[in-house]
Amino acid sequence: MRTILVNTGTELLLGDVQDAHLAFIAREIFPLGLRIDEQRTVPDSEAIGHTLAELFPRCEILFVTGGLGPTSDDITREMIADSLGLELCQDAQLLSSLRQRLQIRGIKWAAGIARQSDVPAGAQVLPNENGSAPGFYLKANINPRIPSSHVFVLPGPPRELQPMFRKYVMPILRSLVPPSALVERRLYRIAGVGESLVEEAIGKKILAIPGIELGYCARPGEVEVRIVGKAEAVEQADAIVRSTLGRSIFSTADETLEEVIVQLLTKRNQTLATAESCTGGLIANRITNVPGASKIFVAGYVCYANRAKTDMLDVDPKLIEAHGAVSEPVARALAEHARACAESDYAIATTGIAGPTGGSPEKPVGTVYVALASAPSETMAKRFFFPTDRETFKQLAAQAGFEMLRRKLLASS
Amino acid sequence: MRTILVNTGTELLLGDVQDAHLAFIAREIFPLGLRIDEQRTVPDSEAIGHTLAELFPRCEILFVTGGLGPTSDDITREMIADSLGLELCQDAQLLSSLRQRLQIRGIKWAAGIARQSDVPAGAQVLPNENGSAPGFYLKANINPRIPSSHVFVLPGPPRELQPMFRKYVMPILRSLVPPSALVERRLYRIAGVGESLVEEAIGKKILAIPGIELGYCARPGEVEVRIVGKAEAVEQADAIVRSTLGRSIFSTADETLEEVIVQLLTKRNQTLATAESCTGGLIANRITNVPGASKIFVAGYVCYANRAKTDMLDVDPKLIEAHGAVSEPVARALAEHARACAESDYAIATTGIAGPTGGSPEKPVGTVYVALASAPSETMAKRFFFPTDRETFKQLAAQAGFEMLRRKLLASS
Repeated sequence: MRTILVNTGTELLLGDVQDAHLAFIAREIFPLGLRIDEQRTVPDSEAIGHTLAELFPRCEILFVTGGLGPTSDDITREMIADSLGLELCQDAQLLSSLRQRLQIRGIKWAAGIARQSDVPAGAQVLPNENGSAPGFYLKANINPRIPSSHVFVLPGPPRELQPMFRKYVMPILRSLVPPSALVERRLYRIAGVGESLVEEAIGKKILAIPGIELGYCARPGEVEVRIVGKAEAVEQADAIVRSTLGRSIFSTADETLEEVIVQLLTKRNQTLATAESCTGGLIANRITNVPGASKIFVAGYVCYANRAKTDMLDVDPKLIEAHGAVSEPVARALAEHARACAESDYAIATTGIAGPTGGSPEKPVGTVYVALASAPSETMAKRFFFPTDRETFKQLAAQAGFEMLRRKLLASS
Repeated sequence: MRTILVNTGTELLLGDVQDAHLAFIAREIFPLGLRIDEQRTVPDSEAIGHTLAELFPRCEILFVTGGLGPTSDDITREMIADSLGLELCQDAQLLSSLRQRLQIRGIKWAAGIARQSDVPAGAQVLPNENGSAPGFYLKANINPRIPSSHVFVLPGPPRELQPMFRKYVMPILRSLVPPSALVERRLYRIAGVGESLVEEAIGKKILAIPGIELGYCARPGEVEVRIVGKAEAVEQADAIVRSTLGRSIFSTADETLEEVIVQLLTKRNQTLATAESCTGGLIANRITNVPGASKIFVAGYVCYANRAKTDMLDVDPKLIEAHGAVSEPVARALAEHARACAESDYAIATTGIAGPTGGSPEKPVGTVYVALASAPSETMAKRFFFPTDRETFKQLAAQAGFEMLRRKLLASS
């Protein structure tokens, strides 16, 4: 089925916002045997109408994103209705839930808001559980201008579009696609091994299996391996990946490293604390992004200034003077004292030079010590070198800390 | 001049790689009065040829990216030559510099590599100083099929395309554009006011100015207003936006709220600490993402467990018992004690229910108290209600804390 994605939004064409929909939708629909054959970005103008009119006869599935909000530049709803000659009808239920939503949040009602409850005649509403503008679905043949194309109109913000897509669009797509098209997809997330090494380990063996498609995606501190094909071939490939990469695989279920950590600690009824200098709260922030983190996370010490290392965690100023704040002894002391102060089972500590300034010949920008305290005599520390931008540096140091803890938990299980 | 960007690459349509060219090129060409009127992504197939043939007569400037490398799926060069009926000629100089490049890097010569020195007859080579595949420029009217369109063919990797664009493409574009086309763009970032209310305040007045384009973009806890037009009209609009929104505007220079906070505190030589319960380190993390944060950020207390509130910041357990951990008195105590412990000028504190569980009828999921301590007697606290997903909740609470501090700093300046 020929599938096209149209992203509307002048902000995309001005470079103020980067599109996230193409990658998201492409990955979601892949297991259905569907791929995006073409993607277009058009401004919030008459161009939406022209593009739709051109594409309706040229595809079986059309996704249109953005331009459903309350402001005057949000015109996708009207353009869809116009180009199909459908009337927009106010949906009383949508209107009342919209009023309720704003009331709960204490937001004042404004003139344009009600437009979000307008729906083209005959369209099926796709509820928006994370925002005010619902999406909608126009079945093929609802109108002579779309005899064979199914049209999905979706909100622009990814945090609204993505859950809506999974919950409401995917079931419709599944009903449209013949089961023979179905392929399987497996994901493996790996920490602590570079992309090239992962490929070297599994690439040739996997690609020797007929009908297998293999993909890699590198993110700071992790690699995702993706395998696609018919069930039998995928099983064969799965056995190779698991036997070759083993414990380096931290998830096969699209989980983050911090989600895995929270699960492992919850299962063992154990707790964690953090002492962060260079990562500045990122480790604590990532852990507390996970629902249920309160069961395992006790306290985070963001001891950014040297004074804070001494005041918060009683690190001996002489230790800092002798070795420098960015040193293995200080990393160890931070981890051990955080564990003791928080009375937690484990503590991760970081101290390093995120840059862009602050480096020296012995400790250039990108140097970081990561320590893990687990039992009084079992602290370990590692030196890493991540010469990159500030935010990626912080992510890489956080990943290193999480992976040290994960390996420790696996080893002692 | 009508401008179109075509990104080629099956990996983009599979979601394995996210496009960075649209945003980059859009921002580069904007000051020339040029904008991308449409963008398309097409796979590495015959679709490239069809799309080019369709677009040649429809634009004055056409950018084509990707598909110039040595592997079999790199076919853009051939598609361009085919669709214009131009021969591909091997450029002897390119070939020898290609050989040299590989030799220096110790890379073996492979069959497909020489293709990268093929250039369509009459094209101007755009040197690639960061990779092996050069780009090229086809002047309008070089061929009857492009009587009025200038075609720029550029390599796919951003780290190759971007320097090439700045050094070789921009000078050509400057020579093509009449000076009268130049337009201005202004951005305003606003915190603490919803998108609809911002539009209600300024929308009609701005749109009454002839030749002004107005756009909004909402992110968690902030709205960006974008105004585009000729210098005089933009000045008029600017006066309206500034007089209407005044101190709600936190940046006109594309800065984040945390960047503004770091600047304001640095200027005053003042310092900040944080006491985070429900935001779990996000505020500290965002502040320490800003280069130079070490000058103003002392310490962050991520007191997630109730015990940590008492142990780290000496919050009276009776206060927690009497009012609950999520309460105004506890938020105030956290802020005041963090400020005292860290000996900082200011401290932001948060305590709330991020969800998805843990709510009660009086304090449902989404309830948060944010406090700001500035002088012993000057602590303020506000209650907010952000019923949304966990990560957005944390972002909204962080924004609220930053905005309270920013307002305080403005009021006392």
